[in-house]
Amino acid sequence: MSGLNRTRDAALRARAEKVVPSGMWGHLHAAKLPDAYPQFFGRGEGGVLWDVDGNRYVDFMCSWGPNLLGHHHPEVDEAAERQRREGDCLNGPAEVMVELAELVVDMVGHADWTQFQKNGTDATTACVTIARAATGKRKMLVAKGAYHGAVPWCSPSLLGVTAEDRAHLSYFKFNDVESLEEAVKAAGDDLAGILVSAYRHDMGFDQELPSAEFAQAARRLCSDKGAVLILDEVRAGFRLDMAGSWEALGVRPDMSAWSKAIANGYALAAVTGADWLRRAASQVFVTGSFWAGAVSMAAAAATLKIVRRDDVPNRLAYLGRLLREGLETRSRQFGLSIRQSGPAQMPTVLFDDDPDFGKGFAFCNAMLERGVYFHPKHNMFLCAAHTEADIAAALDAAEHSFSVVAALGTGSEGRMGRS
Amino acid sequence: MSGLNRTRDAALRARAEKVVPSGMWGHLHAAKLPDAYPQFFGRGEGGVLWDVDGNRYVDFMCSWGPNLLGHHHPEVDEAAERQRREGDCLNGPAEVMVELAELVVDMVGHADWTQFQKNGTDATTACVTIARAATGKRKMLVAKGAYHGAVPWCSPSLLGVTAEDRAHLSYFKFNDVESLEEAVKAAGDDLAGILVSAYRHDMGFDQELPSAEFAQAARRLCSDKGAVLILDEVRAGFRLDMAGSWEALGVRPDMSAWSKAIANGYALAAVTGADWLRRAASQVFVTGSFWAGAVSMAAAAATLKIVRRDDVPNRLAYLGRLLREGLETRSRQFGLSIRQSGPAQMPTVLFDDDPDFGKGFAFCNAMLERGVYFHPKHNMFLCAAHTEADIAAALDAAEHSFSVVAALGTGSEGRMGRS
Repeated sequence: MSGLNRTRDAALRARAEKVVPSGMWGHLHAAKLPDAYPQFFGRGEGGVLWDVDGNRYVDFMCSWGPNLLGHHHPEVDEAAERQRREGDCLNGPAEVMVELAELVVDMVGHADWTQFQKNGTDATTACVTIARAATGKRKMLVAKGAYHGAVPWCSPSLLGVTAEDRAHLSYFKFNDVESLEEAVKAAGDDLAGILVSAYRHDMGFDQELPSAEFAQAARRLCSDKGAVLILDEVRAGFRLDMAGSWEALGVRPDMSAWSKAIANGYALAAVTGADWLRRAASQVFVTGSFWAGAVSMAAAAATLKIVRRDDVPNRLAYLGRLLREGLETRSRQFGLSIRQSGPAQMPTVLFDDDPDFGKGFAFCNAMLERGVYFHPKHNMFLCAAHTEADIAAALDAAEHSFSVVAALGTGSEGRMGRS
Repeated sequence: MSGLNRTRDAALRARAEKVVPSGMWGHLHAAKLPDAYPQFFGRGEGGVLWDVDGNRYVDFMCSWGPNLLGHHHPEVDEAAERQRREGDCLNGPAEVMVELAELVVDMVGHADWTQFQKNGTDATTACVTIARAATGKRKMLVAKGAYHGAVPWCSPSLLGVTAEDRAHLSYFKFNDVESLEEAVKAAGDDLAGILVSAYRHDMGFDQELPSAEFAQAARRLCSDKGAVLILDEVRAGFRLDMAGSWEALGVRPDMSAWSKAIANGYALAAVTGADWLRRAASQVFVTGSFWAGAVSMAAAAATLKIVRRDDVPNRLAYLGRLLREGLETRSRQFGLSIRQSGPAQMPTVLFDDDPDFGKGFAFCNAMLERGVYFHPKHNMFLCAAHTEADIAAALDAAEHSFSVVAALGTGSEGRMGRS
């Protein structure tokens, strides 16, 4: 039970239950979170969020990624509003499509061209389609447990999915060169490509950055076989390296899928690709009613210019390190053993000896009640509007919240967080 | 060649060609239109559009559907802007999600519940997934040649698509009860559902409204088999009947997919469904980063209230009849035989004896040069911001454009429109 006022949230949940199956769908369903969490939000400003009951949170989910520069970033919103006054969804694109495409191609290391969509799933699906068109092959290799979208060919759920939807997917283990080589071998002459996330960010597990050896093996195997190396940057894009998340490894994919942070919350996705895939990309049929929408493109152009100008990934890494070091120190004070993994810009915090996430839920409930929005299982996100004071506030809340977990003891009491 | 100034458009096309495969993708690619057509647009206002060179058009494509009430509708934009000031893409939905869901369920005849997405393809894909989850069956029947989206399971192109992507699709002929019965029979015990467009709006063909017999047969077959009747309202939704396009036929689907016009150009899609599918809809995993975005939901709520208050379908039908009657009279003056099909709100105009669309292209080029944006093959769209004066202007332009076609003669000269 939460000490926070939830009057309005509860009323809205009751109304939603009647007109929306189970009141909400997908990853934003509050039922998947500890019980103190709100379902409905009222307002965002910078790195801070208010729920419909007016409770304020320093927010470390950042809309699950889209909020990169802070809600209501004045430059982004002004660019979007300027475009809105002219037009958004017209009979074709506006001039800003060209400006944005040039900017993306200029920023992203491997990119010779780009195309725009609305959802991350649109972008990963287009990548797979283009890879199959370009190679004339069918097999797509993906890491076991990786998330690449929410449609039958890649959904984390098999409900409503047929076996044929995944007939040409094969699986390897992230960061395991041998398993990748085996999967490539098994695909034989039918390998269209390898689709891999910028890093391993599976929910509920320790995150893993790719080893240089693994990334280079993926590159080499694709080059040897004439297959397409596709990097799924939907979640990590523009937070780790604005030129592409594998640039520091010296590995360039043939295609990448982008979305989430690209327009600071405005709905947009993108595919970027190398020259040899240009023809296939122009031949496959991919489209959507709102894919040429100019407002989100104007927002994206403004966002990406700021990312470059302010070196946003570096700022996020600095803030993320402050948070990580502070959490480490404070958890130790209470004799708790936590595991922090993934890049500092996208922290994941898991408790040792916590098989049912009871400690994580109790910790996050306590954080929430002290005005900090954390996630107990999923990677979190920093945004450029977070301040050192926000990090300090989060660490103060963490000190209290660790004490709550420490007082829990171990075992089944850990379940209290969800009861 | 166009008499219109295309300086800026040409310069943007040249730049786009370098950074976007073939300069544009999908259905908005100007290369698919007569050669006078612009690729890039500058501004929209009501039912009028300006290209990047400042040429003005009375617009009968209406952004290919989304523009239902007119660009920059003050009530819609104000509702969207009010929500924008609070927040758009947050850690969960805003209050407006509930308000919109209640409104949709109240307006749509068959709807007991709704879920929101971004693309029409998101909605049709979710419908198919929910139908398979609810029935435990796999076969989905679709009309031959119908458009239901642009991903491998339904794309109009087979490039980059595998045979398995369509392993469980079977085909019938629209409005052909016998072919539908045969397809149902062939599906045997594995029938998940029938997915059918509100009317037959295949590009390049005469449009067909569904016969009552056909609609009733689809309903009866689904009910008999425990299968799901899914209506694809993405293109026709809210223009024909705000309660659902088959209401007048006395036939209610189990689920419908909506998008395009639902938020007057803001990016949104929706699935609506009957109670017996509520559980399956809550269990399948469907989601997207921007699917809870509050601004497009606020725009949709405002749009749908106006549709109801102003009986928009009726207004569009009136304007569409004015256009249709005027085109018929004027084409006859020049001894031309045209076929106008589909609902008046979504007119399709094709020329007799025009196998290569040469006459249609010449006609539309001439219309464009007189400031009227028509489409030579695809259904068009009326919007509520069109005025009687706009229709009169279109008919004046048509008089001239028919004279151009009449002067062409027949046969290969008809190709001139594209040279």
